[in-house]
Amino acid sequence: MLNIQKSKKMKTDVLVIGGSAAAISAATTGKSFYPDKEFLVLRMEEKVMVPCGIPYIFGTLESSDQNVAPDKGLLDAGIKIKIDEAISLDLEKKICKSADGTEIEFDKLVLATGSSPKVPAWLKGADLENAFTIPKNKVLIDQMLVNCDLRKKIVVLGGGFIGVEMADELNKRGKQAVTIVEIMPHILSLAFDPELSIRAEEILRERGVNVITNEGVKEILGENGKVTGVLLNNGDIIETDGVILSTGYQPNVGLAEKAGIRLNQHGSIKVNEYMRTEHLDVFAVGDCAEKFSFVTRTLKGIMLASTACAEGRIAGMNLYKLSVVRSFGGTIAIFSTSFGDVSFAAAGVTESLAKERGFDIVTGTFEGVDKHPATLPGTHKQLIKLIVARDSGILLGGEIIGGPSTGELVNLIGLAIENRMTVESIMTSQIGTHPLLTAAPTAYPLIKAAEIAAKKHISR
Amino acid sequence: MLNIQKSKKMKTDVLVIGGSAAAISAATTGKSFYPDKEFLVLRMEEKVMVPCGIPYIFGTLESSDQNVAPDKGLLDAGIKIKIDEAISLDLEKKICKSADGTEIEFDKLVLATGSSPKVPAWLKGADLENAFTIPKNKVLIDQMLVNCDLRKKIVVLGGGFIGVEMADELNKRGKQAVTIVEIMPHILSLAFDPELSIRAEEILRERGVNVITNEGVKEILGENGKVTGVLLNNGDIIETDGVILSTGYQPNVGLAEKAGIRLNQHGSIKVNEYMRTEHLDVFAVGDCAEKFSFVTRTLKGIMLASTACAEGRIAGMNLYKLSVVRSFGGTIAIFSTSFGDVSFAAAGVTESLAKERGFDIVTGTFEGVDKHPATLPGTHKQLIKLIVARDSGILLGGEIIGGPSTGELVNLIGLAIENRMTVESIMTSQIGTHPLLTAAPTAYPLIKAAEIAAKKHISR
Repeated sequence: MLNIQKSKKMKTDVLVIGGSAAAISAATTGKSFYPDKEFLVLRMEEKVMVPCGIPYIFGTLESSDQNVAPDKGLLDAGIKIKIDEAISLDLEKKICKSADGTEIEFDKLVLATGSSPKVPAWLKGADLENAFTIPKNKVLIDQMLVNCDLRKKIVVLGGGFIGVEMADELNKRGKQAVTIVEIMPHILSLAFDPELSIRAEEILRERGVNVITNEGVKEILGENGKVTGVLLNNGDIIETDGVILSTGYQPNVGLAEKAGIRLNQHGSIKVNEYMRTEHLDVFAVGDCAEKFSFVTRTLKGIMLASTACAEGRIAGMNLYKLSVVRSFGGTIAIFSTSFGDVSFAAAGVTESLAKERGFDIVTGTFEGVDKHPATLPGTHKQLIKLIVARDSGILLGGEIIGGPSTGELVNLIGLAIENRMTVESIMTSQIGTHPLLTAAPTAYPLIKAAEIAAKKHISR
Repeated sequence: MLNIQKSKKMKTDVLVIGGSAAAISAATTGKSFYPDKEFLVLRMEEKVMVPCGIPYIFGTLESSDQNVAPDKGLLDAGIKIKIDEAISLDLEKKICKSADGTEIEFDKLVLATGSSPKVPAWLKGADLENAFTIPKNKVLIDQMLVNCDLRKKIVVLGGGFIGVEMADELNKRGKQAVTIVEIMPHILSLAFDPELSIRAEEILRERGVNVITNEGVKEILGENGKVTGVLLNNGDIIETDGVILSTGYQPNVGLAEKAGIRLNQHGSIKVNEYMRTEHLDVFAVGDCAEKFSFVTRTLKGIMLASTACAEGRIAGMNLYKLSVVRSFGGTIAIFSTSFGDVSFAAAGVTESLAKERGFDIVTGTFEGVDKHPATLPGTHKQLIKLIVARDSGILLGGEIIGGPSTGELVNLIGLAIENRMTVESIMTSQIGTHPLLTAAPTAYPLIKAAEIAAKKHISR
């Protein structure tokens, strides 16, 4: 007798495929706006990692258990969770098949399939033992953590945010040597102009991290299948028993592609301002979905949990009723990070990018302090650089070096960009100040930087 | 022979009378926009105190020398300073006479004469020895500091921001007992709804400050001309050897009034949206100038250094050329403070005030944490309450309890109010997040509170 197993059937109004930031925000916002609909989150991971928290597992946090995104928000909202892999989609019948054989019928579909580490195809040695990419899967992270603890030295390839944070955290954990290798003239150059990136490099070096910039990697060297060093383009060899490849992520679009959903030229799922694909009932959000820049209006490859969440909320709100006031205007790309007690953050475009794209700009930079008077304990320097359109005075970007308030201060800049505020309207904004919490009202760096830029853009 | 001293003469393009926040920002912004004009700041104090820093002289800081606002910004900009008291104004001849007999001729005048402590006329005992108001003058503060150090107990009358901060700082300095007496049902009730004020009261009590609310003061008791206690309306007597009257400030308008400049019904100098008085060449800014609410559009008595600075910048920019894009839309009243490691902040109207003024509102409250994952060291709870117009969804106010980022987070709320953002536009805003610096993107309290309010205001 043949062992014919009847396929299991499930039905939901809204199916969200994915488990991280974009999926969570699409599901919770959707459920909040359409409480009568059933929502099902289909994800591969038993426990979801807080994506931006991953580097901190290797230093500040003790284990990956401390970096689990809680399911409480989903469950409290009445959203169901199924742990399984989606393996195929039938968009005609609106059915998703999962690895355990279940057929899930849906009315609306949200793809939040995320991204995976990307390794340059030409890079020899990336498959050696002790050469790691940075996974988002808890089981893989736990394996990597055990292995990393056995390494004496680590070379991190790529000086973007994740690479820099990994390097600093591993250095904290007490390696013999941690080295960042960045091919661009400076680290973090996607978010910061050189004068700010240089400050970040100085701080990392003071903290004991080696920073090599303007230098490409030729090959990861090995013996007996294990990493022994990194050969640079200039011929130098960095001896190491561990390499971390922080060389970017690529969108997970296999499922979508197989189902015939259109991708853009960068291989991301094509979406409109409602985060809707070309299929009326299918939305895509987060790292797998197309991004374009709020400021430059060009396609971007930026992957950020915060952008993913904004997209998730927009999809969630538009699932059953499109609304022009709930559409997405492009990514502002708000970055922030912190090493030691110094924080770096940026929103919108850098001076370099603005010029490259053909904007006629002026800038304003002001350095002050983040408390007042500056004699108060725990006062940090606070530097703000603003990038402003010369003709209109509209804010296009901002960069900050500061203390613990930097993460919210950059959101202030982001909100000003989003509202297309001019430097003059920023100058006349009412900024609340307090000795222990902010700069002085008379020397608030955001306002002073706006003033400096305003003087340049206004012809008087 | 008669001793006839010829009066000294001076001449300037712009005369700014006053030395604190409003004066500094009017002078520096004005000089920045009109660099060819001469600016003179005429002020009474040799050294200017950072106004909001004054309570911290009594605890965190060691002396008033650490709370001096630097003159560097003024001097570097080429602004002159004269230390003297303005005693009369002739607006016809555009001449200001100062106490040393100098006649200062000006083209434009900015009045930034500030405010002075106000004591209820009916309060018996306010003139006793060891009953203090909180001055802004360094010499008086130094005297008060010496005297306060000799007090064993202190009763602070008035639970506004300055009163609460003074009480907490004096408690830190190690008094036997520090007591706040507030006549309203709760402290800080101008800025916070009861559920937040109650949290502030709990924290102060945990820190050892006695907090008595809903209770008026009948009389300050004394013997031999010195304070011995405070008699409450309910008949209770609080024994004390020191009383601090934190019962508000009144605008310094004597000079303006004598010169025939029009005051409003609250005794503040009447100004328009360019901060101009009824005299074309005379502006008034800061505590001495009229305030009206951005949200309720009614006159207000609020005095804040941050509002004063915004007004100063507007006057500075409009001195020689009025510009509608550089006008003032009313005060948003952004408050923040901190005791222990908990910070409180508010912008716009409270729920109570909004209802009192006849707004039809909904609210959204969400409590999360200010880092993510919450297992990170130094994580604080973060509670946000938003007050929103029911029909339009426009944000009218926000209140926060949180950690060190609270001071900039409330500015984010302030900017959203100023841009008349709806809760839906806030929900779709891109908020940058980072594990060490902000809440999680999926549970960012500002967005979640907006979502909760949005659900109430939209009929679906």
